[in-house]
Amino acid sequence: MANDSNVDWQFSGSEAAKEASAAALSAYSSKLFALCDPNGKPILPPRVETAETSHTAEKAVVHSVLCGLGNAYAPSIGLPAAKSAVAEYLNRDLPNKLTANDVFMTVGCKQAIELAVDILAKPNANVLLPKPGFPWDMVRTIYKKLEVRKYDFVPEKDYEIDLDSVRAQVDENTFAIFIINPHNPIGNIYTEAHLKEIAELARELKIMVVSDEVFRWTVFGSNPFVPMAKFSSIVPVVTLGSISKGWTVPGWRTGWLALHDLDGVFRTTKIFDAAKQFLEINSKPPTVIQAAIPTILDKTPEDFFVRRQKYLKDKADYAYSVVKGIPCLTCYQKTEACTFLWTELNISCFVDIKDAEDFCEKLATEENLVLLPGVAFGVTNWARHSIDMDSATLQDAFGRLKSFCKRHSITIGEASPEDVNGVN
Amino acid sequence: MANDSNVDWQFSGSEAAKEASAAALSAYSSKLFALCDPNGKPILPPRVETAETSHTAEKAVVHSVLCGLGNAYAPSIGLPAAKSAVAEYLNRDLPNKLTANDVFMTVGCKQAIELAVDILAKPNANVLLPKPGFPWDMVRTIYKKLEVRKYDFVPEKDYEIDLDSVRAQVDENTFAIFIINPHNPIGNIYTEAHLKEIAELARELKIMVVSDEVFRWTVFGSNPFVPMAKFSSIVPVVTLGSISKGWTVPGWRTGWLALHDLDGVFRTTKIFDAAKQFLEINSKPPTVIQAAIPTILDKTPEDFFVRRQKYLKDKADYAYSVVKGIPCLTCYQKTEACTFLWTELNISCFVDIKDAEDFCEKLATEENLVLLPGVAFGVTNWARHSIDMDSATLQDAFGRLKSFCKRHSITIGEASPEDVNGVN
Repeated sequence: MANDSNVDWQFSGSEAAKEASAAALSAYSSKLFALCDPNGKPILPPRVETAETSHTAEKAVVHSVLCGLGNAYAPSIGLPAAKSAVAEYLNRDLPNKLTANDVFMTVGCKQAIELAVDILAKPNANVLLPKPGFPWDMVRTIYKKLEVRKYDFVPEKDYEIDLDSVRAQVDENTFAIFIINPHNPIGNIYTEAHLKEIAELARELKIMVVSDEVFRWTVFGSNPFVPMAKFSSIVPVVTLGSISKGWTVPGWRTGWLALHDLDGVFRTTKIFDAAKQFLEINSKPPTVIQAAIPTILDKTPEDFFVRRQKYLKDKADYAYSVVKGIPCLTCYQKTEACTFLWTELNISCFVDIKDAEDFCEKLATEENLVLLPGVAFGVTNWARHSIDMDSATLQDAFGRLKSFCKRHSITIGEASPEDVNGVN
Repeated sequence: MANDSNVDWQFSGSEAAKEASAAALSAYSSKLFALCDPNGKPILPPRVETAETSHTAEKAVVHSVLCGLGNAYAPSIGLPAAKSAVAEYLNRDLPNKLTANDVFMTVGCKQAIELAVDILAKPNANVLLPKPGFPWDMVRTIYKKLEVRKYDFVPEKDYEIDLDSVRAQVDENTFAIFIINPHNPIGNIYTEAHLKEIAELARELKIMVVSDEVFRWTVFGSNPFVPMAKFSSIVPVVTLGSISKGWTVPGWRTGWLALHDLDGVFRTTKIFDAAKQFLEINSKPPTVIQAAIPTILDKTPEDFFVRRQKYLKDKADYAYSVVKGIPCLTCYQKTEACTFLWTELNISCFVDIKDAEDFCEKLATEENLVLLPGVAFGVTNWARHSIDMDSATLQDAFGRLKSFCKRHSITIGEASPEDVNGVN
């Protein structure tokens, strides 16, 4: 062949995604899993999803495949039947009803976040994101060069949003506040009263609320889940969701974005048009799963969610109680939702660990256990533990964590770890 | 609630996707289908996919769903088993073998095109696209502001690529030539000799070749399909594909991009890194379908493709012969692949039609028949007909087309339509 001389090829790869990709959760998790020893103890958390999947959902997709219901392209905004089903499902809890036209189907909740960022990414615009928050919000705002301002939480008030910090960040170019409810990684759920406060503040500030509610089905605390859109007569609300977490099928890649309009403002401000235009030029969720959405949303027995919530509550109770006995870690907020425990690291209490990333790297190397460092969620000296594993595995994971922390912490004589943690 | 006064909301929708979305094929088809009368004759082509789907593929996905093989997130670059299977499948025809590392799984072939554009979109860079060509290439280059230059075809040489027009467009900022083989919308297949010419020219011009081969399974002419990567020892090649067309499952949204490297140039020029980074921040294909890819690619009996090819050949033969008898239409190239007939409109021969868009709009309005105007593919005065429908429906479609053209064309006395077409 012609490969007999060197060619000075003209092309080179774009670096447009470089910075954003470095902020992805998987950038952190891949690095940590790579530090684990495949020939050592079982690597934790297990990388294969083990939680029970809804049989209703499985049967609905099998039906869709075998009956050829989803073999063709769907409209870019989503299959009409799926859009209607999502609208009806969300309407169960809403005074102001959605129509199918208000719903856009997306490739999981991640593309719903992408879409929410895309439609707002304009020169000089800024949005408010939570600190800590879900990394994908950061990934997409970095990529789209949408300015981000971070708001805080009030630990003393069950990690409610610090409304003063919201007010302090907003200027005339602020378009939206993004909230995550239930919150990942903190694991709390906002009360109805707090959501109403958020709505009223957003109205006063003339910004919309974008609410990521992907964890609404895995709640097991004292606060019930209330959708932000309950207050869409106060403020325009965008709801993001998917079947990933509730039905334990993130690999099915099917979610939605719903526009809860107020006086037609999403139409007049061209938010509605922008959503349609972005979906026209981007990837679509599988039609074969979209076709199953009506059955999945309508027919899954309540018992499935109750069982899952009970399973996670047991794990959260166990993890929270065990962490109290681990030196140098503090969990302030017992998780009431999601599948994680969020703990602060008291770095000064360790002998040879300089920050949370160092902690997570040494833990992976020595114990084949992966915790995600807070920096992935926008804060330092915190870590996120997965609790979504069977009891024996969870015991193993927290046993390793305790042993690791003891080994690396200052000997504290007679003082109990609880005293060191400052939580009694 | 608080909705008692008007609020001057601060936000407004981005228009970043507006121009690109207007170039999408669905922008044209939606407009035309909307002109059809739902209470009139059946709207053609039927909007529901009717072609036979591979039972092997269906069973593989059902197995994947029921055995929980694809419920979790896959790595952003794709499920390892799917990547391996694609590499092995493509390697069947290749002297220089791919490894699983060279393959990236995408949300259908459309995201593979998106990825190919994304990794090359740099300031001042340009790429060559075919004229006519597939609209999605234009959609994504417009959106990413990647400069496009168009190359032509040689009708007299079975619509081979006009290599002189390629040479004339290339400068020191040209990164790639995109080819479509088999070609959509023309419907021809490049010979092995022509592909080698393309490879040698690209090497001389120091650019890569990006080859969209999504229609490689629906070929029924005299030329066999040869993959561009057969010549990857001459020039670096990027292959784009998916199961959508071959297995008649575009709704399953699972495809791939393969980097056929040459002397490691895709690594040194950071094309490889760019592909990984873009996939890290973008939507992923459903894991549940990815998990079925090894079985789909390896176990589908050859007979399935033979039956499909025979079906389409019958339709192409029929459509080509009928078009010869329709005034004002000329089909120069009998389609040998894909699912379309591509015909030129002799606008001066019509009484009251001013261009191809006007033709398609009047045809939809009067006959409930949708053809796509050439402008969607980058040329004027052409139209693309779908031929992928059962014989009775196809006869109905071409009957309506003939009746429409007769009604709107100049009376030509004794001259036969063939004479008017200039094709005998």
